[in-house]
Amino acid sequence: MSTRYRAWAAPRAGAPLEPFEYDPGPLGDEEVEITVEHCGLCHSDLSMLDNEWGFTAYPFVPGHEVVGRVTALGPNARGVALGQRVGLGWNARSCLHCDACLAGDQHLCREVQATIGGRHGGFAEKVRAHWVWVAPLPDGLDAAESGPLLCGGITVFAPLRELGIPPTARVAVVGIGGLGHMALKFCRAWGCEVTAFTTSVSKEEEARAFGAHRVVTTGDAAALKQLTGAFDLIIDTVNVSLDWPGLLNALAPKGRLHVVGVPLEPIAVPAFGLIGGQKSLSGSPTGSRGAIDSMLGFAARHGVAPQTEHFPMSRVNEALDHLRAGKARYRIVLDADF
Amino acid sequence: MSTRYRAWAAPRAGAPLEPFEYDPGPLGDEEVEITVEHCGLCHSDLSMLDNEWGFTAYPFVPGHEVVGRVTALGPNARGVALGQRVGLGWNARSCLHCDACLAGDQHLCREVQATIGGRHGGFAEKVRAHWVWVAPLPDGLDAAESGPLLCGGITVFAPLRELGIPPTARVAVVGIGGLGHMALKFCRAWGCEVTAFTTSVSKEEEARAFGAHRVVTTGDAAALKQLTGAFDLIIDTVNVSLDWPGLLNALAPKGRLHVVGVPLEPIAVPAFGLIGGQKSLSGSPTGSRGAIDSMLGFAARHGVAPQTEHFPMSRVNEALDHLRAGKARYRIVLDADF
Repeated sequence: MSTRYRAWAAPRAGAPLEPFEYDPGPLGDEEVEITVEHCGLCHSDLSMLDNEWGFTAYPFVPGHEVVGRVTALGPNARGVALGQRVGLGWNARSCLHCDACLAGDQHLCREVQATIGGRHGGFAEKVRAHWVWVAPLPDGLDAAESGPLLCGGITVFAPLRELGIPPTARVAVVGIGGLGHMALKFCRAWGCEVTAFTTSVSKEEEARAFGAHRVVTTGDAAALKQLTGAFDLIIDTVNVSLDWPGLLNALAPKGRLHVVGVPLEPIAVPAFGLIGGQKSLSGSPTGSRGAIDSMLGFAARHGVAPQTEHFPMSRVNEALDHLRAGKARYRIVLDADF
Repeated sequence: MSTRYRAWAAPRAGAPLEPFEYDPGPLGDEEVEITVEHCGLCHSDLSMLDNEWGFTAYPFVPGHEVVGRVTALGPNARGVALGQRVGLGWNARSCLHCDACLAGDQHLCREVQATIGGRHGGFAEKVRAHWVWVAPLPDGLDAAESGPLLCGGITVFAPLRELGIPPTARVAVVGIGGLGHMALKFCRAWGCEVTAFTTSVSKEEEARAFGAHRVVTTGDAAALKQLTGAFDLIIDTVNVSLDWPGLLNALAPKGRLHVVGVPLEPIAVPAFGLIGGQKSLSGSPTGSRGAIDSMLGFAARHGVAPQTEHFPMSRVNEALDHLRAGKARYRIVLDADF
């Protein structure tokens, strides 16, 4: 007897999503089936939909910020129970046995498989993943609001944890959008001195509400110059080239410029800008399963949640247009209505 | 009564050095006078001599890898005694009271003064420095061979200490010259798996003698590609642009490309090359006083010393030509003969 999952899929690059059904095949021994309740819409869903990174398979079912309930379990699936509320983010499978997996860095596994990379994602009634990537949702979190934590949230939280950032750090967040607004909230809850860099004067008040102690309008080169040596960490969440030498200059000695946004052009930095003040430029993708669990617990304890706009999943194309137009304030969540 | 120090100085950018005498003025309260016995010749002496970095003052007395004896002490100079054998490296003064100084990162002081930056250096019978930068030389070190440790040595040692590199790390050193050959020795003594990257096939045997377990000829793009994910740390000691994306690709997850050489063109790296494997690009200058002390003790304990060629200081121009011609094997030391 064959199973059918109902979903929303793009038949080709950039096309609107259409109702789509597929047979997921037998559930793997170590797999978990999640019945989707809510799924965040992330900018990388758009990048994948448009095949910007060159590895999208069509028909393409986006969605990798899933919150739902476990409705089936392979016999060797661990760590979750039938009916349990769980989250699933960017990754859905890793090898378990490579150096990175054994070290708990499953997100750096060489064979890691994205939830929407060669698999069908969460804009669907059901989605599957290896049990390693299915994270129990803590009771303190609101299921309807937690999807965006699973990709956007962990992406900006992981650097704080992975880089050993202390609460005494002076942190700047560049770009106050889907990722950036969560970065402000996490950094503030982490105990840091928080500065928001934004191109939109209109976002200043909201940036403060998200946790920024100070807001700087970027594009203002003079303002940036006045911030010489001001930050221990700058988290860049935007997808465009920035004034890299200026940002390095705004770092204190031993400071770090950390990118989680993906500009398509190379990042060019002067060697002296790194050497003189013993500075670093680095990047990271999402986070390990341990980091996700730690982030969810932190978010529950500190009341960190994204600011969301909700659409029923059947209006997914409207939601996509809203995001493409740069109008999302600040993260879109689709509520399943199959 | 005025004091006169005899020295070798360049009257203008790029000119040969000439005998030169100057009055150093009264010894500062916190200053130390060192009578120079030996002084290493570093590539940055050439860069400064040629005013490559734009801040050289003429007449210019090079020399910042000094070994000698304390022959005068200001009343508030601490930590060294008259007659004691000491070393002096790139830095000669820092403010003591800025955040960096108070944190023990005196080399990152905003007002740090280089031994040859607006001061007269160690190609002289005597040189002065603030006591913070005058490091006692451990008994186990050969004074005649230790000058190059004070700048070149600390520059390649500091990353191992500052970045918390464990002896289990797989480290590659790019460029087997003055800095690189000491990097091989330090990394081997540190316990790491060591790979040398060199453009000179002729250096292969020596690189192994310095400590490399493996030697890779750079310029061989295929060889670099085969090294995907092979290193936890790559230390770049050369002053030219490299295949930056290729080097990032040769890093394991969480790996770091650390530059201590200064290419004049910006370093351009693809964002995905940093993000995908959670990698870093960083740089550092020399090291703090604490790092210098720790390096000297480590060198004494592990028998790490540069491979040197000696010239009497009166033949300094011959030594400069030798270095300019790329013939130094591997570090030049001038022996004072005033």
